[in-house]
Amino acid sequence: MTTGPEPTPAALPAPVTVIGLGNLGRAIAGALLRDGHPVTVWNRSPARAEPLVARGATAAATVAEAIAAADLVIVALLDSPAAHEVLTGAAGAVGGRALVNLTSGGPEDARALAAWAAQHGAEYLHGAVYAVPQTIGTAQSSVTYSGSAAAHRRWRAPLDLLGKGTFLGADAGRASGYDVAVLAGMYGMLGGFFHAAAMAKAAGISTAELTPRLVSWLTDLFPALATFAEEIDSGDYTTGESSLAMNATGLETIIRASQTQGIPASTLAPLKALIDRQVAGGHGSESLARVAELLLSGP
Amino acid sequence: MTTGPEPTPAALPAPVTVIGLGNLGRAIAGALLRDGHPVTVWNRSPARAEPLVARGATAAATVAEAIAAADLVIVALLDSPAAHEVLTGAAGAVGGRALVNLTSGGPEDARALAAWAAQHGAEYLHGAVYAVPQTIGTAQSSVTYSGSAAAHRRWRAPLDLLGKGTFLGADAGRASGYDVAVLAGMYGMLGGFFHAAAMAKAAGISTAELTPRLVSWLTDLFPALATFAEEIDSGDYTTGESSLAMNATGLETIIRASQTQGIPASTLAPLKALIDRQVAGGHGSESLARVAELLLSGP
Ligand SMILES: NC(=O)c1ccc[n+]([C@@H]2O[C@H](COP(=O)([O-])OP(=O)(O)OC[C@H]3O[C@@H](n4cnc5c(N)ncnc54)[C@H](OP(=O)(O)O)[C@@H]3O)[C@@H](O)[C@H]2O)c1
Ligand SMILES: NC(=O)c1ccc[n+]([C@@H]2O[C@H](COP(=O)([O-])OP(=O)(O)OC[C@H]3O[C@@H](n4cnc5c(N)ncnc54)[C@H](OP(=O)(O)O)[C@@H]3O)[C@@H](O)[C@H]2O)c1
Repeated sequence: MTTGPEPTPAALPAPVTVIGLGNLGRAIAGALLRDGHPVTVWNRSPARAEPLVARGATAAATVAEAIAAADLVIVALLDSPAAHEVLTGAAGAVGGRALVNLTSGGPEDARALAAWAAQHGAEYLHGAVYAVPQTIGTAQSSVTYSGSAAAHRRWRAPLDLLGKGTFLGADAGRASGYDVAVLAGMYGMLGGFFHAAAMAKAAGISTAELTPRLVSWLTDLFPALATFAEEIDSGDYTTGESSLAMNATGLETIIRASQTQGIPASTLAPLKALIDRQVAGGHGSESLARVAELLLSGP
Repeated sequence: MTTGPEPTPAALPAPVTVIGLGNLGRAIAGALLRDGHPVTVWNRSPARAEPLVARGATAAATVAEAIAAADLVIVALLDSPAAHEVLTGAAGAVGGRALVNLTSGGPEDARALAAWAAQHGAEYLHGAVYAVPQTIGTAQSSVTYSGSAAAHRRWRAPLDLLGKGTFLGADAGRASGYDVAVLAGMYGMLGGFFHAAAMAKAAGISTAELTPRLVSWLTDLFPALATFAEEIDSGDYTTGESSLAMNATGLETIIRASQTQGIPASTLAPLKALIDRQVAGGHGSESLARVAELLLSGP
């Protein structure tokens, strides 16, 4: 009889704490429970914990008690001020734990909390969740992380339950930096879509008829974004093919058409103002992408 | 020796007139010349005709003379006021001809010119050109038409030189109705992209790094636009999954992050104002798409 190495027992699912039981936190706690993790939860309004407790979660009476219950603490609160308030109120409990904060905010917010966590002996990983309601807390969503590489490595298995994870680097603000920029881009597209829907309706075209044509044209334009990106990164706008002057006329036509239809051009006017400032500065023949410079140089 | 039917002689390329020799008109005249059409051109600044004359085009001294030279007259001028001015100045010459106007403008502009053309015995077809500079006047671009179906059918061969054509119906304003709406959507996306680029830069992320992530997220959102479209067309916003309240918070986070980075949130503020008005009206739990209603109801 030979004795081989003892088979490694499958690691038991580790205890995890979830702070904040809004749409995101509830979905995360549910996914962890489904996977067999002991889950401790805390929410400002305690009633939201009840359905999770019925499924086996433990409701903690205080934030500090919740944090003390697990080495991995996932935070999903409304916004940065809420996350700051809730975490700093339990500073004594965080030492030695990994804080994974999925609360949306700017890069500075994440860096500030990372510095605070370091002071209190905690690892800090910031995550930005890309999910539509149907995919929150499932492996179909995706999450970008930055901050503690060690925490990302150690807690990969439970984090993978929340979505496909990508680690973007040690700067805790990097995931948020991408996130707020991508979401600014998203709101630009959404504002444009709603404006387009109203203009089409005014011309007797349904939004369902419009949408495939709009989506197809936006898709055709994606390669142009890569060209604009090169111009913005190099600061050289002189070889651009979509000039500021041409776009000043084009956008003026759209604004006039919108106003003729009785649709206020409020969502288009700010871009027009930026284009006009660059044309007035003598850059009409340069690339449209030069408007990004005005945003970077402040109001 | 048997005599079969005489082979049909290949139709000779028909004479075509091009009014307006900007970027679009020059590309069109060039494509027609390449295909062997006799081409007559007119441009306000006569010098622009010279390279085309060197390639075989005829320069007309007046608009009326240019129109008289061909049964198909393609118009590509800066904007609707210019097209109106140039065409109405040659009203006596248009009878019996097909006017294909590719000048950008609103649906009302196209309908007004169509009515004017009908009064003067001309067929009117309005076209909206979707091209990037590299594809103007080539079969790689696409053109949507509306107005005279007969003109679209008869002149299909030369028109196909300008891009893949689609006929959208007898309302001369329909192609423009789609066009100005699609372009409003495009400028929304572009404004969002430039804002995103500035925010990423402020966080130390290059535009080249940002762009693929943004494009991927926008692509993921396209199906949501179809859902919003159904809501807007039905006027029922109650089952929406992306609520006005959630987006008020989300957009507020982005605006705060932008301002913290020193980047004015001017391009995002108008959408935020529309969302806030709907939330203040008691619709916070309804779909974000309800903002389109505010645009349709005027300022
Ligand atoms: N849902 C998503 O699909 C998604 C996707 C990407 C990112 N995110 C981000 O994830 C975060 C949470 O989103 P969510 O959808 O879960 O939001 P939500 O449903 O609005 O939930 C907000 C949560 O924050 C709590 N909260 C708010 N202010 C608080 C305060 N001052 N002190 C303590 N708790 C406070 C709320 O507690 P009460 O129950 O007591 O009100 C609730 O648990 C947000 O930053 C969001 O941008 C969400
Ligand atoms: N280029 C494209 O890729 C593209 C794509 C889609 C749609 N379009 C649309 O096509 C139209 C033409 O575009 P483009 O790129 O060719 O513009 P462009 O290069 O700026 O050329 C403008 C043309 O309009 C003429 N013009 C301006 N005002 C005039 C007036 N009051 N009277 C007579 N002529 C006048 C100019 O004549 P001068 O030479 O004398 O100045 C020039 O021939 C625009 O409505 C544009 O939106 C263009």
